[in-house]
Amino acid sequence: MTRIALDAMGGDAAPSAPVAGAIEALDTLPPSCEVILVGRSEQIAAAIDDLCMERPERLSILDAPEVIEMSEKPLAAVRGKRKSSIRIGLETQKAGGADALVSAGNTGAMMAASALILGLHPGVERAAIGALFPTASKPVLVLDAGANIDCGPRKLRGFAHIGNVYAKDVLRRDNPKVGLLNIGEEEEKGNQAVRQAFDLLQSDSGINFIGNVEGGDILTGELDVVVCDGFVGNVLLKFYESVARLFVGLLRQEMEQDVLESEAMGRVLKVLDYSEYGGAPLLGVRGVSIICHGRSSARAFKNAIGVALQAVESHVSQHIGDEMASGASR
Amino acid sequence: MTRIALDAMGGDAAPSAPVAGAIEALDTLPPSCEVILVGRSEQIAAAIDDLCMERPERLSILDAPEVIEMSEKPLAAVRGKRKSSIRIGLETQKAGGADALVSAGNTGAMMAASALILGLHPGVERAAIGALFPTASKPVLVLDAGANIDCGPRKLRGFAHIGNVYAKDVLRRDNPKVGLLNIGEEEEKGNQAVRQAFDLLQSDSGINFIGNVEGGDILTGELDVVVCDGFVGNVLLKFYESVARLFVGLLRQEMEQDVLESEAMGRVLKVLDYSEYGGAPLLGVRGVSIICHGRSSARAFKNAIGVALQAVESHVSQHIGDEMASGASR
Repeated sequence: MTRIALDAMGGDAAPSAPVAGAIEALDTLPPSCEVILVGRSEQIAAAIDDLCMERPERLSILDAPEVIEMSEKPLAAVRGKRKSSIRIGLETQKAGGADALVSAGNTGAMMAASALILGLHPGVERAAIGALFPTASKPVLVLDAGANIDCGPRKLRGFAHIGNVYAKDVLRRDNPKVGLLNIGEEEEKGNQAVRQAFDLLQSDSGINFIGNVEGGDILTGELDVVVCDGFVGNVLLKFYESVARLFVGLLRQEMEQDVLESEAMGRVLKVLDYSEYGGAPLLGVRGVSIICHGRSSARAFKNAIGVALQAVESHVSQHIGDEMASGASR
Repeated sequence: MTRIALDAMGGDAAPSAPVAGAIEALDTLPPSCEVILVGRSEQIAAAIDDLCMERPERLSILDAPEVIEMSEKPLAAVRGKRKSSIRIGLETQKAGGADALVSAGNTGAMMAASALILGLHPGVERAAIGALFPTASKPVLVLDAGANIDCGPRKLRGFAHIGNVYAKDVLRRDNPKVGLLNIGEEEEKGNQAVRQAFDLLQSDSGINFIGNVEGGDILTGELDVVVCDGFVGNVLLKFYESVARLFVGLLRQEMEQDVLESEAMGRVLKVLDYSEYGGAPLLGVRGVSIICHGRSSARAFKNAIGVALQAVESHVSQHIGDEMASGASR
């Protein structure tokens, strides 16, 4: 039995989008998987009633009367709102009542509360956000996508190991190809942290390190993991989303309706559709914590529940713990 | 009389692409503008003969027997190859025989040689690359796009001033809106350099500083200048180019020929076409130095010559010098 907790109060369209996503997910999830909606129980019950004649099986509600707003300071909010959906969702996981939490709420609060409540694996200073970037073929994992602003070489090496385990366990890649994001392929390129990380990774037999990669290499489909600091990763993630929006907007503005509705265009737009990937795992915590975009649709929540299930079933968190304990952070 | 020198040996398709670009440019440039092709004169003459029955007026050849290859170490190549097209092009500008140099050759060599030969304006430690990013409306200037890897707060403030002058002079923007690239809008976000740069810019009455901007804000069309360090800017520039390639490739793969050749699709693809912008100015040097993409087409060279002409005629270099001397770097 796997139980995925979903923060029903998180995101711009809460609770209706997360509730709808949970109900859609149950149609495709294996029978052994349940979803727990965490949040204000009356609002959640009303949202379920709007969508279904009767409450679906394998869907339960866990009451959490407080909500951490998007604009709140993360640490203060996590400390102050002990009955918030994010806290209660994570505490339930910690106590064994759930295997994962998915939330589109305040990202900083999810990060802070996950570290505080689930804890970090030994050897992990701070969890990293792993973002999946769509390519024309398989997606590539970019980390860190925003949790770690200043990253020394050891931290970057840690991201390589964490990403390597995630790519094997969840993305099912054999011998994942790991690249270090830089401004040139030559090893003397980049700032000091990146140059030193290059040396560490070059001599690290536990990683299939293919060397420095540039901004233009990320989406070739040849890489499984791209390592960068959280400043660059966050800027790239948000930029990519905006390019996809710009591009889709241009097509909508210029093309005729029949072209837009064609199957061919559907395939193009699907590649650019972030909701395909649902959520970004917070990696390095002792458990499963999936961060969704504030603008998540029901479909994005459904897919994020799928991401959480894969993480639980593959035991990726435990494997990351083993990897970091075995000296990846040394 | 304005004379634009063009490195005929630079870029993957040299000399044919730069020569063709120069010839195309002459059709649209004002009669007072000449183009000087710099490089191996026999090869250039042969490339001209391939394209024209007779040599166009206002097109001349300046012999430079050496070529700096893309793979060479910039500084050593600039020092060693005194008869290279890049050096001779810049020395001619320094001596008053040309007003600008455009090159798609070794970027590092262009930067090093420009600083060495043209020199930097007082108050500029190192020139910055200004890259124009296409948006659905007007392009936005992102700087630095790769010349400065480690940037303290004062350097970032300098980029804001340099970009401000460029946006006014060349992009013809009134009171340009300048944003600081960060991972959140709040002023406490980001690494130390960016936080301190925020404070400097916030109290700087010479800049229409609109605050922190995120990766997703760059392409909204509401900004004129985005300030970032050269690591982030370079990664973003190359990433954006690759996203555009990915989109165009997806469309080519999926859509029918008649849709691809439609006017509507032409308008979509035009937005994503980097050759529209031709070249990136190296800002902070005493003169005009325009860096083109190694993959530049004839059309890109033609447009880069246009960028160079605008820079010359608007006196942007002199205005940047005035701005930096007046205390923007204090």
